[in-house]
Amino acid sequence: MRSETEIIERLRAITKLPEGSRVTLGIGDDCAIYSPEGSLEDLLFTIDLFIEGVHFLRETHEAAQIGRNALARSLSDVAAMGGLPRFCLVSLCVPTWAESRWATDFFDSLGALAASTGTVVIGGDLSRSEKCICDVMVCGAVPRGKALRRDGAKAHDAIYVSGNLGGSAQGLESRKGEAWQRHLNPEPRLGLGVFLRDHLRATAAIDISDGLSLDLRRLCLASDLAAEISDPPRFPGATVERALHGGEEYELLFTVRPGVEPPESFEGVPLTRIGTIIEGPAGEVRHNGSVLPPMGFDHFRK
Amino acid sequence: MRSETEIIERLRAITKLPEGSRVTLGIGDDCAIYSPEGSLEDLLFTIDLFIEGVHFLRETHEAAQIGRNALARSLSDVAAMGGLPRFCLVSLCVPTWAESRWATDFFDSLGALAASTGTVVIGGDLSRSEKCICDVMVCGAVPRGKALRRDGAKAHDAIYVSGNLGGSAQGLESRKGEAWQRHLNPEPRLGLGVFLRDHLRATAAIDISDGLSLDLRRLCLASDLAAEISDPPRFPGATVERALHGGEEYELLFTVRPGVEPPESFEGVPLTRIGTIIEGPAGEVRHNGSVLPPMGFDHFRK
Repeated sequence: MRSETEIIERLRAITKLPEGSRVTLGIGDDCAIYSPEGSLEDLLFTIDLFIEGVHFLRETHEAAQIGRNALARSLSDVAAMGGLPRFCLVSLCVPTWAESRWATDFFDSLGALAASTGTVVIGGDLSRSEKCICDVMVCGAVPRGKALRRDGAKAHDAIYVSGNLGGSAQGLESRKGEAWQRHLNPEPRLGLGVFLRDHLRATAAIDISDGLSLDLRRLCLASDLAAEISDPPRFPGATVERALHGGEEYELLFTVRPGVEPPESFEGVPLTRIGTIIEGPAGEVRHNGSVLPPMGFDHFRK
Repeated sequence: MRSETEIIERLRAITKLPEGSRVTLGIGDDCAIYSPEGSLEDLLFTIDLFIEGVHFLRETHEAAQIGRNALARSLSDVAAMGGLPRFCLVSLCVPTWAESRWATDFFDSLGALAASTGTVVIGGDLSRSEKCICDVMVCGAVPRGKALRRDGAKAHDAIYVSGNLGGSAQGLESRKGEAWQRHLNPEPRLGLGVFLRDHLRATAAIDISDGLSLDLRRLCLASDLAAEISDPPRFPGATVERALHGGEEYELLFTVRPGVEPPESFEGVPLTRIGTIIEGPAGEVRHNGSVLPPMGFDHFRK
């Protein structure tokens, strides 16, 4: 099977933004942007699959964790653009192995996260299949023209990351302790996204869903620049390797202009400078002086 | 497994429309409605799964047909609300059995239907799985407050249907001839939807995705009324049974005030009066004088 990148290229090929379509950003960022006529807001759109056997296992994830995660992934994309969620649509294939309480637990948990983040569940689709498949579309909003994008980083910008990395990958391996809880219960950084947009005026942002090395590469590719980083802050017990390449973190990676000094933490989550945007081959990430291969998760590569 | 209706009830339970959310219609129609602040338009949102083994078979549907159908289903929901599509998001699990041209054919075909209907493909998600799973979200637009809904029918309204029914179910059985082509290549009635909204000022509309008996019942339930119908117009070779209960038609079922006289056809598609909205038990459909059981397709009932 081809790599995800090749198939995305095909998807990109059918994506043209015609004049007057009011789609102001198409494929290639955490969310696409639609600018309704006459409105003061831009609307952000993202959709994320969450699939048994690919993103989680039946044996390790209860219905409530599946429901919460299915929504959290898309909320994290909205956070990365500096938006606040407005509503969501939920497609669910109820697995044939599900017991009678399963759907109740799934929707109650998803609904609780939706309610606590101001996300209105406005519809969805249901089917059944052997495996559990979730697909959640979230619409968020930002003031017109204010979305944080991947392509805005400039040379000499400082690179920051929220939280401590590698915990999710560590937990997936050990299946115990705080690292495992971290993997099971990701927290979309919605408040932080708004803070980056309004107070730090971040130049670019992305959420770390596929690993720092791959997601930083994406930010650099979009901005047509390179990056130089040192070791990122690590989750207790996680290796440097896991912090650099582990996915499913849902922390925010962002850049700010030189001279902007983020606080040490925001709402209890540390904000750590890990490097600098530099002139160089587009997408190249240098780690402690050597080129870092992008080893994050690509569903199609294996 | 519970019926789809029960699980939808659970989904409904987590759906509350808070004050000021700008969601003006939630779960329970072909699309939900979001009214952006300051805009002259309402935005319509729908999402539809299209799954191997549930909605189609690998043996019978080529990649191009799968791509087209996956989008056509959601476009039909927008047509039923009187909207025109603006953009879509496409989630796709590429099946492990797919050959190298498969994804190209899928996206080219989906892209062609998108381009011909003014739908901009703005993003999506990709994964892989044993079976092919598509989930397409479409956003459409109508002038503020003008969407056609299921709940607007009034007693004495005339009930109409577009096209001739039963062909899709007939084709699924015979797998040959025009009925089979009809099943493989559904046509969303976008132009008709706008005509119903602007010219006939239809009081209610729904697309026939799960069969006339079930979809008319839904329209009647939403409008808190009953209906009396005679035999619907039949696709050549289709039985009355198939015309009454066959799904995957994507024709529009709509109601107009007494005195409104729709043309005999619109853009070559016949418009046929099949009955009248009447006072009676909410959701009851009488066919030639007898109560018609809703026998349309429910993925969870079997």
